[in-house]
Amino acid sequence: MNIKKKGSALDYSAFKFEITHRDEKSGARLGLLKTPHGTIETPNYIFCGTKAAIKNLSPNHMREAKTDIILSNTYHLMLQPGADLVAEMGGLHKFMGWNGPMLTDSGGFQVFSLGEGTMANEIKGKNSGKHENKNLMEITEEGCTFRSYVDGRKITLTPESSVEIQRKLGADLFMQFDECTPYHVDKDYTARSMDMSIRWGDRCLQTFENTYDLASAGPQAMYGIVQGGVYEDLRRDSAEYTKDRPFFGTAIGGCLGGTDEEMQAIAQHSMNHVHPDRPVHFLGIGQVKDVFTFVRMGIDTFDCVIPTRLARHGVAIVKGAPGETINLKNAKYRHDKTPIDADNGVAASTDFSKAYLHHLLKAKELLGPQLIAQHNVATINRLMREVRAAIKNGTLDELEKEWLPA
Amino acid sequence: MNIKKKGSALDYSAFKFEITHRDEKSGARLGLLKTPHGTIETPNYIFCGTKAAIKNLSPNHMREAKTDIILSNTYHLMLQPGADLVAEMGGLHKFMGWNGPMLTDSGGFQVFSLGEGTMANEIKGKNSGKHENKNLMEITEEGCTFRSYVDGRKITLTPESSVEIQRKLGADLFMQFDECTPYHVDKDYTARSMDMSIRWGDRCLQTFENTYDLASAGPQAMYGIVQGGVYEDLRRDSAEYTKDRPFFGTAIGGCLGGTDEEMQAIAQHSMNHVHPDRPVHFLGIGQVKDVFTFVRMGIDTFDCVIPTRLARHGVAIVKGAPGETINLKNAKYRHDKTPIDADNGVAASTDFSKAYLHHLLKAKELLGPQLIAQHNVATINRLMREVRAAIKNGTLDELEKEWLPA
Repeated sequence: MNIKKKGSALDYSAFKFEITHRDEKSGARLGLLKTPHGTIETPNYIFCGTKAAIKNLSPNHMREAKTDIILSNTYHLMLQPGADLVAEMGGLHKFMGWNGPMLTDSGGFQVFSLGEGTMANEIKGKNSGKHENKNLMEITEEGCTFRSYVDGRKITLTPESSVEIQRKLGADLFMQFDECTPYHVDKDYTARSMDMSIRWGDRCLQTFENTYDLASAGPQAMYGIVQGGVYEDLRRDSAEYTKDRPFFGTAIGGCLGGTDEEMQAIAQHSMNHVHPDRPVHFLGIGQVKDVFTFVRMGIDTFDCVIPTRLARHGVAIVKGAPGETINLKNAKYRHDKTPIDADNGVAASTDFSKAYLHHLLKAKELLGPQLIAQHNVATINRLMREVRAAIKNGTLDELEKEWLPA
Repeated sequence: MNIKKKGSALDYSAFKFEITHRDEKSGARLGLLKTPHGTIETPNYIFCGTKAAIKNLSPNHMREAKTDIILSNTYHLMLQPGADLVAEMGGLHKFMGWNGPMLTDSGGFQVFSLGEGTMANEIKGKNSGKHENKNLMEITEEGCTFRSYVDGRKITLTPESSVEIQRKLGADLFMQFDECTPYHVDKDYTARSMDMSIRWGDRCLQTFENTYDLASAGPQAMYGIVQGGVYEDLRRDSAEYTKDRPFFGTAIGGCLGGTDEEMQAIAQHSMNHVHPDRPVHFLGIGQVKDVFTFVRMGIDTFDCVIPTRLARHGVAIVKGAPGETINLKNAKYRHDKTPIDADNGVAASTDFSKAYLHHLLKAKELLGPQLIAQHNVATINRLMREVRAAIKNGTLDELEKEWLPA
């Protein structure tokens, strides 16, 4: 691998990441991440608004649930409504009515995960097996070609077009374009892929520098992505690359193995070599247990679809519940007069009985998943507030026992 | 027909209907309808929360949209979750988190409309043809027997059980049990059916008097229902019956003909004979044009599923729009930066562009129908506020031109 030093100083003057506290005992850190749309405290959680909307929740619902930051997906938005339309509307913030900090991904993850995210688990290592992506047509040095799931047309996404699209979308934070390799590929493929992602990263940086005029909503900052599959030396090389380049932040991406232990080891291999002063985002990871594990490695932000996806299946994330969640479709809640969580500070959590939510799910009323979604978002935001307080107070172990009793 | 005088004085002391103003020019009237859960101004609109939930909207959404009163459907609730469960939870108000006035219907309309409301248009006269209700099994003097669409079990609903169920559900206002005849039936059938509904009405009154102890949430008041199909003399007889009995209010139900003109004539035949001092509810009618037509006949409350049903199809009710509505799925809104209605006083109407709502509908994001539903409810509540002000000021004609330009 050949990492070329680049001397360019990209303009991140509207951004700042400040580490305000380190908890030597746990390894976790507190920070302030400043963006043109506000400053968030870290560690924090970025909620997925895939198609310029959080599933089932309005911006007002998100604010009520004390949300600091959300993301949206380049892949989905480039297909519908298209980046030019979002730019014409003044960028994602204005388009969707969210005034706080926002992130977009590069589109790569979805392109490489079957066109609609169904291979996500495989990429994350949750299962193995053959990689059958019927929408993905070709991966070359230039970029990747796939069929739109909206209208079947052939689309090529490149490092250049991914950056241009993210400029037009206008989120505060955005991601380099990379190839996201699935679990089953061998080291040789992973190494070649990682090298290509590095070349793609440099093309992204170059494009970033040349496309300030495309930005629909002001200054933006780009993250480099650490790939390298399950291989320690590849993770190191990829992390060294991101550290060496003028990215604003670092993201840990790609396949993280098949077990919690493997995921932790691979994340640690990556974290050992990332830039120590830049914010680190963990792509697509965000169960409660993951938050406790990875803040201790210094991860600053998380994102995951589970708060809203679980809600659509009637599952509520609850502090102290066995396995993090309760399934409100369970018949045992039919007569339960208690709310999901009386201490969660949002009406969805406190003002409705489990019996009522159970009824809504049985009756297939959309209000059920909607209320549970807002509850889940409020719960995760509360988790992050409590995690930050615990890092400050050196009580992360105690807090973890409260959220995840043995 | 033989109407027996009844001497019983039912306890409606927690309720009051006061006519505060009559607009001699238009024929409309203003009133105050007092219930144990608050007093509403009339004319007003009762929004359908069929299964103890407004489709896609929370009680908070409804309050933001300035809603005064909602209803829920006995038929759906008796099947899921069951009236006993609702009673155990303290009644509908507590169960669903709605503290304002509430109404339930008797279950009859749904029983006679194919089990899930799909015959509703036929009953209302919107189309003719054979009455094929595959869930309805038998109608006898005792009541009617049907199969549950939830689990297929055989259920008999009688005047007695309808009242008992509505006692347990605990809404402030409720309806007598009646047979709701469809458009295609002849006068002979309609007359016999109406006579039976009258006998059922008396059984409802008797049961009402004997079931105070079943009430899950305090005092309730019952409405009699005017049936009689499209036949003037039957409507007269049925209205005279409701006037003669100690119902708190009067509802206009059943088939109203196939055209606007026929509907108006039949409503007028009914209104000519109803009790002049009792509140009159128009069952299942509630387009904007209907509101203007029927407040002039003295109708005090309306209900209809259209505000939330149209929203699920991307259709927004808009003051002054041709045909009352705009269809946000229409491609002409793809680039439209304007909100649905900047003067509607709710974020769903004012804070999102038509382009964004169009995108949400194209992307099949549930947030789209949700926002439009709240907009529609806010629009109808604003309509009713403006109608009340216009009745007071004698400017109903002018207001109608603003809402429904020629």
